[in-house]
Amino acid sequence: MRRIVTLTTDFQEGSPYVAAMKGVILSICPDVTLVDVTHAIPPQNVLQGARVLKEVVPLFPEETIHVAVVDPGVGSERELLAVQWGTQYLVLPDNGLLTYLAERDVPQRYIVLENPRWWRAEISTTFHGRDILAPVAAYLAAGKVTLEGLGREKFSITKWAVPLPQVESGRLVGEIAAVDSFGNLQSNITWEIWQKNVGNRPFRLLFPGGEIETLAKTYSEMAPGKTVALFGSEGWLEVAVVCGNAARRWNLGVGAKIEVLFPLSRQETK
Amino acid sequence: MRRIVTLTTDFQEGSPYVAAMKGVILSICPDVTLVDVTHAIPPQNVLQGARVLKEVVPLFPEETIHVAVVDPGVGSERELLAVQWGTQYLVLPDNGLLTYLAERDVPQRYIVLENPRWWRAEISTTFHGRDILAPVAAYLAAGKVTLEGLGREKFSITKWAVPLPQVESGRLVGEIAAVDSFGNLQSNITWEIWQKNVGNRPFRLLFPGGEIETLAKTYSEMAPGKTVALFGSEGWLEVAVVCGNAARRWNLGVGAKIEVLFPLSRQETK
Amino acid sequence: MRRIVTLTTDFQEGSPYVAAMKGVILSICPDVTLVDVTHAIPPQNVLQGARVLKEVVPLFPEETIHVAVVDPGVGSERELLAVQWGTQYLVLPDNGLLTYLAERDVPQRYIVLENPRWWRAEISTTFHGRDILAPVAAYLAAGKVTLEGLGREKFSITKWAVPLPQVESGRLVGEIAAVDSFGNLQSNITWEIWQKNVGNRPFRLLFPGGEIETLAKTYSEMAPGKTVALFGSEGWLEVAVVCGNAARRWNLGVGAKIEVLFPLSRQETK
Repeated sequence: MRRIVTLTTDFQEGSPYVAAMKGVILSICPDVTLVDVTHAIPPQNVLQGARVLKEVVPLFPEETIHVAVVDPGVGSERELLAVQWGTQYLVLPDNGLLTYLAERDVPQRYIVLENPRWWRAEISTTFHGRDILAPVAAYLAAGKVTLEGLGREKFSITKWAVPLPQVESGRLVGEIAAVDSFGNLQSNITWEIWQKNVGNRPFRLLFPGGEIETLAKTYSEMAPGKTVALFGSEGWLEVAVVCGNAARRWNLGVGAKIEVLFPLSRQETK
Repeated sequence: MRRIVTLTTDFQEGSPYVAAMKGVILSICPDVTLVDVTHAIPPQNVLQGARVLKEVVPLFPEETIHVAVVDPGVGSERELLAVQWGTQYLVLPDNGLLTYLAERDVPQRYIVLENPRWWRAEISTTFHGRDILAPVAAYLAAGKVTLEGLGREKFSITKWAVPLPQVESGRLVGEIAAVDSFGNLQSNITWEIWQKNVGNRPFRLLFPGGEIETLAKTYSEMAPGKTVALFGSEGWLEVAVVCGNAARRWNLGVGAKIEVLFPLSRQETK
Repeated sequence: MRRIVTLTTDFQEGSPYVAAMKGVILSICPDVTLVDVTHAIPPQNVLQGARVLKEVVPLFPEETIHVAVVDPGVGSERELLAVQWGTQYLVLPDNGLLTYLAERDVPQRYIVLENPRWWRAEISTTFHGRDILAPVAAYLAAGKVTLEGLGREKFSITKWAVPLPQVESGRLVGEIAAVDSFGNLQSNITWEIWQKNVGNRPFRLLFPGGEIETLAKTYSEMAPGKTVALFGSEGWLEVAVVCGNAARRWNLGVGAKIEVLFPLSRQETK
């Protein structure tokens, strides 16, 4: 069966650097299915890369190999890893790219890439994606090497502190963690946190410049132009403009605060 | 033989939503050839999506399955369809996306997606592309289900009123219907309409800010910087700037009027 | 074995013109692996296309067929070629797209596309990528035709004069030849030229607005925000901003001058 290799980078769409990696992979393992996850991660934004991996990796089949290159520390002391996550694999720098995915399910194994036998003959100081990560993924895909053959095992990885929403008495304070291509503002407030704290109570959601008091189910149940709050397909609370662009309309982006106020029952306020 | 599945969306290039759909498809049918038609349809612009489908679908081989997601009504009452068009298939919302393709050749069959057996186990309210359209296309590609197995047949679909050029005595009034990546302004005036009305007569083509009196065959037969009118590779009358960008030069976009004046013979003016 | 066909164009990412070419290729040779090199070549910028081909083609495996469409002269007298380069093939207009690749290794054979048997039945005047280059690549990939069957051999091609850095006594004057997606300014000064002239001597690198006196090995060895000079993964001298964008920071682009001053030894100045 053909193995799937996906690519996630901050090289930007249309970058020939991506094609360079594909050339290296296909030279080693021509019979592979290549899938671009995205190359539009903002440059050096490891945490956005980590969010994408968490959303996309779980949807892929067994044995898929995911290569991720958001690597501001290329050429420095940061290590490169091959990781087993469930029945899939990731090949990436140990710089926080696994922050969200490892929260979802703890990877089974981390191998530090140390065996140059599975690298290109010449290693540049600036493009380890092409010279180390791509060939390692290709040799894995070709079944020429196992995880163990790539280097030594290690037992902990770099994870970033992720800003979690704060829960106070009658108040939930979160922030915008991502903006999608429709301009929908995705917060760090999950459905679980919402259910546990707000539930079905009336609420007021405040964000810089606006306020919402009802939760929509879909983008289309309100009139075009109306601002709505809803839980998106990934389970995050979003602020969206029906048939519009919330990020532009409200001039908001990653980091903007959003606040949910809800009344406490008499029992709770005691 | 490997089946081809194409994807056309308004998610924008580099959107991880596209990769999510690919993960779902490959999980069901790993042995498929995925082709991105475009993800750069302007958000919610169903009619631009319809134009692209008309240009691109006819070029693909038998048995290709085209998934199209420009779906401002996601979660509303709009239906999702699997469509047979000649020897190919389309899987898309019934919201006008077939407007142009159905004009070219009437599809043989429309099936409303109703059988959740071929959907993902959990259906979000906001991303039916991932949860319904992608798995349906994948099960079709895998040969696990036929069109009939997906739901009930229906016999008419949503089509948009497409602005047609108006033909008056000695005058043809059209509009810009699309702008390509070179900034070429593509009108809704087809070669057939031109032949029937203007033919080989002298003419004056007027657009806001400029005027052209000859028809070019290619972008390169005039000097760089010159504005030309010609029929593009899809058979639409275009206004282009040689080695330049007509949309930027003339500050024009979709909806701009263009007018062709031509002299009538004495017989015609009677 | 599945053949690989790559595509390099100036159609811009997301252009349906690319999908049109893929539809044509897959209709002729369904069992092909398609790889997008880039579609983000600036419109009509043949020399940037030529740089990308030089960087990317050598990384692909034997028998790969590379289609390149940066074709401002479409419809004019410029010829279309099928080229053998080592064990790989290119299909492209003869307009300078081979300028850099042919410098690296001289192609073995140039065939002018003249046999319409391997073209689409109808040839537009404006889109030879779809109507001639794509089907020719597909028939080659399918093994239905050899290079010789495509047309007549010719023995020289169009090459552009490439601006080379000037070497003067104690002075190297180059220019920015490309800007990558990180905003790194890539000059036309190669590692070979540097070694031969500057070597390990102290130097001052001057560019409009700034100056650098040391050579970095990686983007990450200096503090974020610092401007560094280094040799990139392709062997060109680059000016970069650590975790930043040099093109934006210094407002520089292709064509900007960069100058390296270095002291001569007494012997050399004689």
